[in-house]
Amino acid sequence: MYKRLARTRLEHDCIGQMEVPADVYWGIHTQRAIANFPVSGITDGQHPELIRAYATVKRACAIANEELGLLDHTKAEAIRQACLEIEGGKLADQFPVDVMQGGAGTSSNMNMNEVIANRALEIAGHPRGDYAYIHPNDDVNESQSTNDTYPAACKLALIDAIGPLAEATKKLAKAFHDLADKHINDVTIGRTQLQDAVPMTYGQEFHAFATLLKSDLAAFDRVVPLLAQLNLGATAIGTGICADLRFRKSAIDHLARITGLPVTAAPDPVAAMTDMGAYVATSAAIKSLAVHLKKAADDLRLLNSGPRCGFNDLNVPARQAGSSIMPAKVNPVIPECVNQCCFMIFGMDVTVNWAVAEGQLQLNAFDPVMVHELLTGMSLLTNAMTVFRVNCVEGIEVNVERGRAFAQSSPSISAALNHYIGYEKAADIAAEAVATGRTVREVAGERTNLPAEQLDEILDPIRLARGLGQTCREHQA
Amino acid sequence: MYKRLARTRLEHDCIGQMEVPADVYWGIHTQRAIANFPVSGITDGQHPELIRAYATVKRACAIANEELGLLDHTKAEAIRQACLEIEGGKLADQFPVDVMQGGAGTSSNMNMNEVIANRALEIAGHPRGDYAYIHPNDDVNESQSTNDTYPAACKLALIDAIGPLAEATKKLAKAFHDLADKHINDVTIGRTQLQDAVPMTYGQEFHAFATLLKSDLAAFDRVVPLLAQLNLGATAIGTGICADLRFRKSAIDHLARITGLPVTAAPDPVAAMTDMGAYVATSAAIKSLAVHLKKAADDLRLLNSGPRCGFNDLNVPARQAGSSIMPAKVNPVIPECVNQCCFMIFGMDVTVNWAVAEGQLQLNAFDPVMVHELLTGMSLLTNAMTVFRVNCVEGIEVNVERGRAFAQSSPSISAALNHYIGYEKAADIAAEAVATGRTVREVAGERTNLPAEQLDEILDPIRLARGLGQTCREHQA
Amino acid sequence: MYKRLARTRLEHDCIGQMEVPADVYWGIHTQRAIANFPVSGITDGQHPELIRAYATVKRACAIANEELGLLDHTKAEAIRQACLEIEGGKLADQFPVDVMQGGAGTSSNMNMNEVIANRALEIAGHPRGDYAYIHPNDDVNESQSTNDTYPAACKLALIDAIGPLAEATKKLAKAFHDLADKHINDVTIGRTQLQDAVPMTYGQEFHAFATLLKSDLAAFDRVVPLLAQLNLGATAIGTGICADLRFRKSAIDHLARITGLPVTAAPDPVAAMTDMGAYVATSAAIKSLAVHLKKAADDLRLLNSGPRCGFNDLNVPARQAGSSIMPAKVNPVIPECVNQCCFMIFGMDVTVNWAVAEGQLQLNAFDPVMVHELLTGMSLLTNAMTVFRVNCVEGIEVNVERGRAFAQSSPSISAALNHYIGYEKAADIAAEAVATGRTVREVAGERTNLPAEQLDEILDPIRLARGLGQTCREHQA
Amino acid sequence: MYKRLARTRLEHDCIGQMEVPADVYWGIHTQRAIANFPVSGITDGQHPELIRAYATVKRACAIANEELGLLDHTKAEAIRQACLEIEGGKLADQFPVDVMQGGAGTSSNMNMNEVIANRALEIAGHPRGDYAYIHPNDDVNESQSTNDTYPAACKLALIDAIGPLAEATKKLAKAFHDLADKHINDVTIGRTQLQDAVPMTYGQEFHAFATLLKSDLAAFDRVVPLLAQLNLGATAIGTGICADLRFRKSAIDHLARITGLPVTAAPDPVAAMTDMGAYVATSAAIKSLAVHLKKAADDLRLLNSGPRCGFNDLNVPARQAGSSIMPAKVNPVIPECVNQCCFMIFGMDVTVNWAVAEGQLQLNAFDPVMVHELLTGMSLLTNAMTVFRVNCVEGIEVNVERGRAFAQSSPSISAALNHYIGYEKAADIAAEAVATGRTVREVAGERTNLPAEQLDEILDPIRLARGLGQTCREHQA
Repeated sequence: MYKRLARTRLEHDCIGQMEVPADVYWGIHTQRAIANFPVSGITDGQHPELIRAYATVKRACAIANEELGLLDHTKAEAIRQACLEIEGGKLADQFPVDVMQGGAGTSSNMNMNEVIANRALEIAGHPRGDYAYIHPNDDVNESQSTNDTYPAACKLALIDAIGPLAEATKKLAKAFHDLADKHINDVTIGRTQLQDAVPMTYGQEFHAFATLLKSDLAAFDRVVPLLAQLNLGATAIGTGICADLRFRKSAIDHLARITGLPVTAAPDPVAAMTDMGAYVATSAAIKSLAVHLKKAADDLRLLNSGPRCGFNDLNVPARQAGSSIMPAKVNPVIPECVNQCCFMIFGMDVTVNWAVAEGQLQLNAFDPVMVHELLTGMSLLTNAMTVFRVNCVEGIEVNVERGRAFAQSSPSISAALNHYIGYEKAADIAAEAVATGRTVREVAGERTNLPAEQLDEILDPIRLARGLGQTCREHQA
Repeated sequence: MYKRLARTRLEHDCIGQMEVPADVYWGIHTQRAIANFPVSGITDGQHPELIRAYATVKRACAIANEELGLLDHTKAEAIRQACLEIEGGKLADQFPVDVMQGGAGTSSNMNMNEVIANRALEIAGHPRGDYAYIHPNDDVNESQSTNDTYPAACKLALIDAIGPLAEATKKLAKAFHDLADKHINDVTIGRTQLQDAVPMTYGQEFHAFATLLKSDLAAFDRVVPLLAQLNLGATAIGTGICADLRFRKSAIDHLARITGLPVTAAPDPVAAMTDMGAYVATSAAIKSLAVHLKKAADDLRLLNSGPRCGFNDLNVPARQAGSSIMPAKVNPVIPECVNQCCFMIFGMDVTVNWAVAEGQLQLNAFDPVMVHELLTGMSLLTNAMTVFRVNCVEGIEVNVERGRAFAQSSPSISAALNHYIGYEKAADIAAEAVATGRTVREVAGERTNLPAEQLDEILDPIRLARGLGQTCREHQA
Repeated sequence: MYKRLARTRLEHDCIGQMEVPADVYWGIHTQRAIANFPVSGITDGQHPELIRAYATVKRACAIANEELGLLDHTKAEAIRQACLEIEGGKLADQFPVDVMQGGAGTSSNMNMNEVIANRALEIAGHPRGDYAYIHPNDDVNESQSTNDTYPAACKLALIDAIGPLAEATKKLAKAFHDLADKHINDVTIGRTQLQDAVPMTYGQEFHAFATLLKSDLAAFDRVVPLLAQLNLGATAIGTGICADLRFRKSAIDHLARITGLPVTAAPDPVAAMTDMGAYVATSAAIKSLAVHLKKAADDLRLLNSGPRCGFNDLNVPARQAGSSIMPAKVNPVIPECVNQCCFMIFGMDVTVNWAVAEGQLQLNAFDPVMVHELLTGMSLLTNAMTVFRVNCVEGIEVNVERGRAFAQSSPSISAALNHYIGYEKAADIAAEAVATGRTVREVAGERTNLPAEQLDEILDPIRLARGLGQTCREHQA
Repeated sequence: MYKRLARTRLEHDCIGQMEVPADVYWGIHTQRAIANFPVSGITDGQHPELIRAYATVKRACAIANEELGLLDHTKAEAIRQACLEIEGGKLADQFPVDVMQGGAGTSSNMNMNEVIANRALEIAGHPRGDYAYIHPNDDVNESQSTNDTYPAACKLALIDAIGPLAEATKKLAKAFHDLADKHINDVTIGRTQLQDAVPMTYGQEFHAFATLLKSDLAAFDRVVPLLAQLNLGATAIGTGICADLRFRKSAIDHLARITGLPVTAAPDPVAAMTDMGAYVATSAAIKSLAVHLKKAADDLRLLNSGPRCGFNDLNVPARQAGSSIMPAKVNPVIPECVNQCCFMIFGMDVTVNWAVAEGQLQLNAFDPVMVHELLTGMSLLTNAMTVFRVNCVEGIEVNVERGRAFAQSSPSISAALNHYIGYEKAADIAAEAVATGRTVREVAGERTNLPAEQLDEILDPIRLARGLGQTCREHQA
């Protein structure tokens, strides 16, 4: 006769006891949280950066605890091993708590403590649930609190997510840069306030998009030290109750060593417990990127307008049929997708604003929604930039002839004549060009005594685009 | 020898041709869209209201087309049958396009057209892909455009989502109402600007939450007619090109009949093509609900503060252990979860604001992000209200004795004496009560000549809570 | 010997005593508030609607108080007279408290009580400050609290401000309507997703702007009843403490009669004390108007783009020189001004969101910033619409010939041929038109057997714009 | 006979001619702008930082122009003199253009050019309007465009406004620091999620506010270099048309020298023309400050709640009577004022988000609303912090006895016993304390064998507040 396998194990906490499925690594705290927060349907596990970062934090703390004699070597080793497995992507399905959980991250912390404890128990040859040997709170969570480890994990997760975000940013910048290089000598018209202004090159136009994206990379760099300032060892309210006074330094040092990041200890732990400045700055950096992406998407949609009744400076690649009833219509669907991702980010920034500004007294309980929104936003922009690059930017075709015609047709080009015939006469030429629909070059050929060759040079769009319209005095000399 | 089964079928569109998996109902337009927009990882299919509503719109259009002789009966019948299946929840996995798609919903429309066509083909005994018999564009999309059917489907989906949202709102209101009824005679202190004011009952306090929620139900009712004003038959830009002039009325009538909703035709189809007023109003109604939920959550967290160093007017149910290091600490995790959902809604409103305000010329291409955000927000609040009710409100326990003590202790209660001893003397009594820590009743017993019985009546908190502090003149007479 | 005139009078309150300038109508409460809140530099007096509305509320309350025997006739008459003067615009410089005041409007209320009291004293032949005869609190504020009268005044002020806002909206709608009528037969190209779509008329385009604005007028009408639901008689926390039970109905009735508005009493005064739904709805209505104004401004800037390298469908009037260095450049400065006003409104909506969602327990103390923001926003849009109309819309000149050329050039026009030669052949014609730069009409003349006259009719842009591209079947029969 | 003095002078521009009042320094461009933009009623002149900064920019450019031989010494000297006067605060009433102006700042630029030209003409002994001698465009605006000088002036104005903002921040931080020092040994209860947690000192609590504010000072420092990166010499679209190639370096160098700021030239002028990153970062820094101010205001309102039915940890100073009907009620009006200022900032951030994200092609035309909003926001917070400090923080009185009682009463204090009697027994003691309403100290005295003296030490709130609850192992050794 076979002994019937238990399908659940019984656990207890300060509220009472509860059955937990026998085959999961989580425990009663997680089980309660599953029932408490079924609101978004999105789980902690869907933010792998957060899971990995939390396991890293726990590992650093275990090392510190062992070092300070608070955890014996065998247990510490098992805990570290369990952490490393989670950091490596294992047990990814063991983090089922809803991301919108109340409790300031306590459920995420206890979920992590329980999974680590149960996996460590297995590693140590004990059955799951044998907390007398390794306890989620007393051992895994030793010297820690949700209020210091959860923000630490959140912030490291954000730094982690900056990696692919920055990578996608760099690649998109490079795609714009490559496109710019290809068209470095192809002139078109610059437009301000949507009105024809003066000549520039497509190269300058695309290069600017790359420059804007590069400025975002610099902005990401500026937020990393803010995010890397942690509150480990501050425990419940920043006073470090229940933590050995040496724990703080030890845990921070190990975390810095493990991650290779400039992890530092916040100088005022009580303040750090409620300071949301790093989240505000991170959100702003992401928003700034979105502003730049929106600009590129908006401009490409404008420049792609037409084909006959719009600007038509360029064509974005045709990715799909644009209309079910209008033959041959193709729409800029990729920039439109990018635009919408940016709108999400602008909403994200407001949600983050709410969360950061609603802390009370010694804690802000709303980290969960902050980190969920920021990680989601970063992932969204990471993907959007890849899509933007591969499905659009890399396939842009410039209408070189049209650009050249635009550059020559602009009445504003007459500004280049100011130095030779005076502003008044130049303005007259511009006015006649506007009235008759001719080019400034044509009118100037008739109305001035300047030789044709010189006029061609003065009004050469590529020279104007390069700022050579007005020769330096020292060059003239 | 067995003939090898084809794993794909070849389809073509105006861009070229492409392999589509043989076992799916979608076609080339969907297949391209899958590749074009991998940004959020969330698909149209995750908004079942949208899928259902779109199938309903297609069904109404098929009926109208048959009626106008634009579609023969057999094909129309197969199309209708396919629509009904989708409306009933079948083929739910056939809508894989990312919700953040560019193209103003064209991919969602073509996905629906393709799935309906292929399912209708099956029903009619034809193989999938035999578009010569039933064509996604020419038959399913007959007389239609994305620009009129997609907004119609979006708006009907939002009306659909109002159903469970309103139901959850009603139930939560009832839970507050029941709690109020239970404590209709239990007095406590009312607080304004967080300062002790004058007595009220817990019943009044909880009843107010119910009243606020009921006002949201009225607001939902006000947005339905706005959402039900549709643009069917307007086709590409509102001028109705390619649609029979009679189609508009026929399709609207059938849709009204099928849905039982007050569906009407927008009087100015060109304006309707770009009018986002209904989305603004819907977002505002959801936001107003969130404001009321936040108020209830905030107030409950305040009233639950303590147990010893806070208000402690009541206790929300203990749903999980609150701290890993502080024994017996229990936190108001459910209201905190609700708070965070509200922050999401406030961000949603801003994202919607962006999308609605970025239309250009004859179309706003950003419906996809609008409907995604609104449906997500509505679902989130629906779930949050259920969680709020079941996991918190229904289990609230009022600290009746503490409330009574608060009501008696407030110095502001002296206002009730104004009519008997004058404002000046009443103010003196209040001042002494503040200075000595005694109650107004105690001081008044010594400082006035009013009989004890009358003083008890004048200062009776329950009478003050009911506005009986100042007897009507006509009652006095 | 001349008796020296006192430059100040001495007043006292529960905090102590203070000198008040002898020549002002306000008293000690106002004087303290001036010192307390010097933050924005904008005073209550800069919102004349608020001042007028508050005086009206006080007048209605005085009538009710007299009616209930709570105020003798002579005093009531003097108070009413003072109110009428303020409602008429007198004493406008007597409301110096900063609009960002803390205190939930108490300073505004006391400022109003003091000014009315002192002016009523003068009218009654008493010196200012002789509060023993007419007291700001005991007489002017009788049966009232800040918490019920201030929201009442705020809401009536908002209704008042809707007047000029609606008037400016109507006039702007009419200006667009007039422009539309003038160009009812002038065709141009409709564009979706900035791509050439199918023909429409300028008349349809401008008419749509008018239609959108008219929908806002309907939205304003929907918020009035919400704003007109008042809480008078609810006093401190909604329980009506210190107010005669009959006061509520009497004050509401008199206010309805005086204002001619659908003023009603909130059914749950405790809930009404904290319900901010009317502000949310008002803000949303203003935002919806801003969305529509932004759309018109954005579209006009696009349509005005050029003159040579843009759309150039029309010209907005030249209001000022556009550039200091580019001769003849003129920019769409008025739409740009309108755009910026809309951005202010979108920020206003978020500020209002914050204020409405931060109430605590029995009061939301943040009405002052709400009403300041809403009144400022309404005034801004009122002015912006006048500027938009007079300085831009009324002077728009349509480039009729260019529009016609656009309408004929679009390849999408081939959709009109579907019914005559089939979709496939129509698509071929469109493709050739795109490839060769010719018009669909030209290619169709060669590639089809349709008589030239019929082709001209089928492809007639004005017929397409009117939705006549596809004759109804019943008309064909 | 007296010659009648002309009341106006006649000026002309590319639109035509116009009368300008004879007694003003501005010219026709300004005069047109006054008529064009009467929307907000707020003028450029109400942002003195902007006026001063613009004059400084013009002065640096004049020096550069003279240096490059583009402006003769006499004219340059007069222009510089005029600039210096404006920088010194003179002619402050000569900048009447509405801050919401369209035109990307052209009106502000021309207003400045005209005022400088006319004042320089006077200085040079010429009549106003004698532009043949000194011309607003040809001389004052030489080598410049609105598109490079206006952003330069805006950014320098923002840096300027950071000065008083930082000063007010420092002073407020110091006020909190002083308050903290005064109460460095006064214990109270720390609260997380509004639930009693573990002891801390008032000193720690107030010190945290100071720390948060100091982090904002660091954030201000980080934005200065972003704001100081300028685009001077880029002229119309970044290509530098009409500007001598050497001008850029010269103007930047002189501006750096004059201002003493780290002014640098943007490396990609075309990108810089549309990059709004500095505004996004500035807005985020201001928002972060607002988040911190809101936190302090919110916490003070909570801690001040009561007096009998709330926390009552402290009393904010009574600044004015709180109620017209409730004697002795005093409200936290100053924190409430601060809260509202923060809500304004949160709206500001959204308005700025809109403006920065709506640029098109070679220009973002919406700088005016950005700089108006940012300067207004900075001024508002500067004033709010002064009011907060003087009218509130400096007068806060701590209820030392109540804090001590709170610290001792918290059941969570039992956590300190974990190391001596084990977690389980400590939890039992906490539970009994909760159930019986006694203190942990009292129960522990009965339930443990620890000597009274040791118990007193272990549970000493001040030791717990200082993190000494758990002696370091090395200390124990």
